[in-house]
Amino acid sequence: MNRFAWKGHIFQTNDDMKIEIFENSWVLCEDGICKGIFKELPEEWKNAELTDFGDKIIIPGFCDLHVHAPQYTYRGTGMDLELLDWLQKYAFPEEASYADLEYAEKAYSIFVTDLRRSATTRASIFASLHVPATELLMEKLEASGLKTYVGKVNMDRNSPDILRETAESSAADTDRWISETENRFENTKPIITPRFIPSCTDELMTSLGEIQKKHKTAVQSHVSENPSEIKWVSELCPFSDFYGDAYDHFGLFGGENCKTIMAHCVYSDEREQKLMKERGVWIAHCPQSNMNVASGIAPVREFINNGLKVGLGSDVAGGSSLSIFRAMTDAIMSSKLRWRLVDPSLHQLSVDEVFHMATRGGGSFFGKVGAFEEGFEMDAVVIDDSALYTPKKISMHDRFERLCYLYKDAKIVSKCVSGRKIDLG
Amino acid sequence: MNRFAWKGHIFQTNDDMKIEIFENSWVLCEDGICKGIFKELPEEWKNAELTDFGDKIIIPGFCDLHVHAPQYTYRGTGMDLELLDWLQKYAFPEEASYADLEYAEKAYSIFVTDLRRSATTRASIFASLHVPATELLMEKLEASGLKTYVGKVNMDRNSPDILRETAESSAADTDRWISETENRFENTKPIITPRFIPSCTDELMTSLGEIQKKHKTAVQSHVSENPSEIKWVSELCPFSDFYGDAYDHFGLFGGENCKTIMAHCVYSDEREQKLMKERGVWIAHCPQSNMNVASGIAPVREFINNGLKVGLGSDVAGGSSLSIFRAMTDAIMSSKLRWRLVDPSLHQLSVDEVFHMATRGGGSFFGKVGAFEEGFEMDAVVIDDSALYTPKKISMHDRFERLCYLYKDAKIVSKCVSGRKIDLG
Repeated sequence: MNRFAWKGHIFQTNDDMKIEIFENSWVLCEDGICKGIFKELPEEWKNAELTDFGDKIIIPGFCDLHVHAPQYTYRGTGMDLELLDWLQKYAFPEEASYADLEYAEKAYSIFVTDLRRSATTRASIFASLHVPATELLMEKLEASGLKTYVGKVNMDRNSPDILRETAESSAADTDRWISETENRFENTKPIITPRFIPSCTDELMTSLGEIQKKHKTAVQSHVSENPSEIKWVSELCPFSDFYGDAYDHFGLFGGENCKTIMAHCVYSDEREQKLMKERGVWIAHCPQSNMNVASGIAPVREFINNGLKVGLGSDVAGGSSLSIFRAMTDAIMSSKLRWRLVDPSLHQLSVDEVFHMATRGGGSFFGKVGAFEEGFEMDAVVIDDSALYTPKKISMHDRFERLCYLYKDAKIVSKCVSGRKIDLG
Repeated sequence: MNRFAWKGHIFQTNDDMKIEIFENSWVLCEDGICKGIFKELPEEWKNAELTDFGDKIIIPGFCDLHVHAPQYTYRGTGMDLELLDWLQKYAFPEEASYADLEYAEKAYSIFVTDLRRSATTRASIFASLHVPATELLMEKLEASGLKTYVGKVNMDRNSPDILRETAESSAADTDRWISETENRFENTKPIITPRFIPSCTDELMTSLGEIQKKHKTAVQSHVSENPSEIKWVSELCPFSDFYGDAYDHFGLFGGENCKTIMAHCVYSDEREQKLMKERGVWIAHCPQSNMNVASGIAPVREFINNGLKVGLGSDVAGGSSLSIFRAMTDAIMSSKLRWRLVDPSLHQLSVDEVFHMATRGGGSFFGKVGAFEEGFEMDAVVIDDSALYTPKKISMHDRFERLCYLYKDAKIVSKCVSGRKIDLG
């Protein structure tokens, strides 16, 4: 039995999306599973491996529900275009580089190192369409100790020659790749990843639906991000009533044995939201990307009111930052602009709510993840925020809010995923 | 004669708001004044103090046109309210603490240290209404080597008892404080700072107008930030045609011998913009604050089209970050949302334009500042961005854009203001 306990100021959210604070308390872990939070260390734990982190903050690890690993190389550049032009000019040419395994080796090393050192413990990741580079990425992620889903991207139309498959080869590659990787790693799983409807023919989508049924693999894609994209999809899939319905047509929009993440949902209407709720689809809210690519602001308050499942995504390189702290504050800031400029009936998001989205909200995609409840997997991040010192007396809740906005001056000192300590070097 | 030259990749903007890049070039400084940029070091400079910064980036120092020093203590907290409630609940109670000089000493030390270590070389700063604490702040800023304007705030209505003056005492204190400090420092100047119209009676504003005429002191305040505030001002000053007109009524809205910064201008209409242009008022665009306090998005593209003078402000603690890099990218991001959600005729801001606003735009308030032109004051910041390494081949322009978004992973290695080296420790 592997037992350890960490002491500090423990922050998590409850099911009502409220922050719970346990000052100077212990969180216990046995064989990777959390045994709860205790003010006093239970007598029978006195011989466990004990670490007192003093005044530091302990939070559940963050879950990044949407990030493009091959785009990490150009994050923070090419911020002058809308989605569809941005894909053609920046995303597609760069992703084509991952045909070169030597380039992939360099680029993915940096991505995985930075993700490992961040406050993120779990992620659902888009790779490129190249199977060898995708497997390389999976190997690197496996070695990092993080728990991730990784998608070989499918795309057989509306992309440049250097980044396009045939429907047949894309499906065959995907089937083989899933067979070869679904049981190969402990922490890393394949996920079916049609780039988005405009990139995938009906023929390919049909095959992916069949592959999904065969392997019961999870699915991730993009939906209702940008008005031009939505219009295009309605033309490409005249059989669909709305964008999400096009995925659903091929059995790739949630439902039993088809755990699905859909990124963005900036313009998801009532029908799309209803279907997401019925099918249990997770929404990856990516506020920074939605600003950078000028998409708009997703109605997250509406998603919450409607009982939808919402997590956060960095969406690098639509987003420039891999930090989920940044995604949290961007979600708050953009919700305020939405309230002011679009719909004053939808109130701004609170720090409690975005913390929930970053932990429990996205965590539920990975299982019992995102809080220090007994029986949950033990993902924890320990943060030294002493550089944020202020002479003002502030509450612990304020201290946490401050950390979210000023995280860049704080330091991650320890981190574990399912109880396994992560190397932060 | 004090002569030095720095070599690196030099970035600045021209008057057309376009970035100019000088790779591996020298920028020369003689007695605090820039002597221009040279690809080869002129023969007669061989004996000057030479520093080759290699692959590093050299930019003009940033100008922060709007920041509240006493609010630095609570930046990143209290982000749940709109402007007027936010002032009552967070800003006013905290500013009242600066009656205590011991508290001011602690708080202002942190503020000045962080500003000194940042990429900002000049700033126009709100203090609190307390003269002793304001003078303490001025002394600390003077010692830092940064060049700043500092305002003792005036407020004699609509604020709590602990943070309100009488019109008479406020005017008398201001007149005496200006007399005592206008020639006391080399780098630090007083600036007349009526908090905003709702905080100042007509009697006080009349006196401040007279004091301004007497000393020819610069002026700073807030205008047209929030719809409720604007409505309130129209009620408080029924003689005014619009918000800015209320300041103008008292001679505190620019014009000859009355250099003025107005922060926000989120809702400045045609008349207000016209008057700002006539009076030569500088606009401090504070995008992060405008999101955090849910004000909205200023029509900066319109300001540029109309030939107004625009600089950037961090507006701590409406803004949580003191970084003008952050203000630059926030300005871009919010301009995209404005384009998408409010007015598609106003195109998003470019990285070139926000760099101009951060340097030349705000710099012109301080004189010949914000570029490495011959005859300009030599404000320079040297940045090591090697931690932003990417295997992708990127242009120098992309490298600069990337620095703006990912500045937190870059390191400032040297900095000077009017040729004087700043201690970064």
